[in-house]
Amino acid sequence: MPGIDKLPLEETLEDSPQTRSLLGVFEEDTAATSSYFSQLFKAMQRIYDAQNELSAATHLTSRLLKDYEKQRFPLGGDDEVMSSTLQQFAKVIDELSSCHAVLSTQLADAMMFPITQFQERDLREIVILKEVFQISSDDHDTAVNRYSRLSKRKENEKVKNEVMEDVYTSRKKQHETIMHYFASLNMLQYKKKIALLEPLLGYMQAQISFFKLGSENLTQQWEEFLTNIGTSKYNKYYKITKRHKITKT
Amino acid sequence: MPGIDKLPLEETLEDSPQTRSLLGVFEEDTAATSSYFSQLFKAMQRIYDAQNELSAATHLTSRLLKDYEKQRFPLGGDDEVMSSTLQQFAKVIDELSSCHAVLSTQLADAMMFPITQFQERDLREIVILKEVFQISSDDHDTAVNRYSRLSKRKENEKVKNEVMEDVYTSRKKQHETIMHYFASLNMLQYKKKIALLEPLLGYMQAQISFFKLGSENLTQQWEEFLTNIGTSKYNKYYKITKRHKITKT
Repeated sequence: MPGIDKLPLEETLEDSPQTRSLLGVFEEDTAATSSYFSQLFKAMQRIYDAQNELSAATHLTSRLLKDYEKQRFPLGGDDEVMSSTLQQFAKVIDELSSCHAVLSTQLADAMMFPITQFQERDLREIVILKEVFQISSDDHDTAVNRYSRLSKRKENEKVKNEVMEDVYTSRKKQHETIMHYFASLNMLQYKKKIALLEPLLGYMQAQISFFKLGSENLTQQWEEFLTNIGTSKYNKYYKITKRHKITKT
Repeated sequence: MPGIDKLPLEETLEDSPQTRSLLGVFEEDTAATSSYFSQLFKAMQRIYDAQNELSAATHLTSRLLKDYEKQRFPLGGDDEVMSSTLQQFAKVIDELSSCHAVLSTQLADAMMFPITQFQERDLREIVILKEVFQISSDDHDTAVNRYSRLSKRKENEKVKNEVMEDVYTSRKKQHETIMHYFASLNMLQYKKKIALLEPLLGYMQAQISFFKLGSENLTQQWEEFLTNIGTSKYNKYYKITKRHKITKT
């Protein structure tokens, strides 16, 4: 429905069928928004969980390599080349796991926090306001009913005044809640845009820092290490194994 | 036990208690290796699974953003700025998910494949050879027992020849299997080093290409995009929301 972006607060007192129909459109839009965000939230939660798991598994791998020295292998316990090589692997993998941990934290703060807030605060607020509005409308209807029955019978002044007072306060209450509800629905139209963009920006900025951190701190160090290993230790073992295979066959 | 790195194949025929005791050391070492690799395998499997999940969740997020246009929002369906912004987010997140998918494939080939091969082929081979060796030893013992009982009684030449033939073939068989078993145990001492280094190298090389791919292809593109978004659309929405908040209070 192009062109409409606000529920008119000034028409809440009149509470016309047109306003009610417009409210229906906003409520439908809110339901669609809620459903879309619920999917997006789940996808982001999956990213976040997987990132945490990756971080933990990387850390565990590094720890296992560090523990190689402490293993009680009856043979080859004196293989210092192997031990020191694995220590180096452990060190760089540990650094990588730190990068992953930083990424996890950033995703928590800049992606999960804003989208969770929107889910649990803003969208929830609408649900609650709708209920409150419904209750106050019902109260108002009850008061009006009482008043309409009242006029047919003869009542004392005191009861009459009470009922009229009741109509007045319930009408006032209903007007307040509908204004609050409308204002929140209007606000949600803007909030939902921020709520979409903010976690995405957070996600991207976290990824960019991760790539920067990884490239700057690790890549060079790793490449030197891999070149060393590729030309010496690894090849040494590899050649021995190949020779052994040839001898065997 | 430093200095020992081979079971002597030339002493398999004699099958002395010394050789058996040395075999015990090698078997113990194999058990320790098996247990260590089992832990490392699990940790690597966790990395691999988490990486796959991350790749899938990133892809899903990108798809959800692409689908934003197709959502039937009764309001704001004509918000082209929002739609095009989300399309751009979807595009870069999709590229990132491609990088993740490449990383997953590389981890499968260069990390999971070699360590799985070692677990399921090399370590399993030792288990099977141990069983085969045990069976052939038992067969040999049975034949020798029959032979020793034989000498006390008077048997015909045919039976004697059969039993002696049996001792000879079972002894030959046992010798063959113990040589095979020893050779495999010796080989495992080298193989386990390769089996440790190969998946680690694969892991690191995969990570390095991932960081390279990410930094080269994405970072610059992302940063431009984020600068654009940060200065225009996002701020526009943000300011509107802040103004809205101020008006409300």
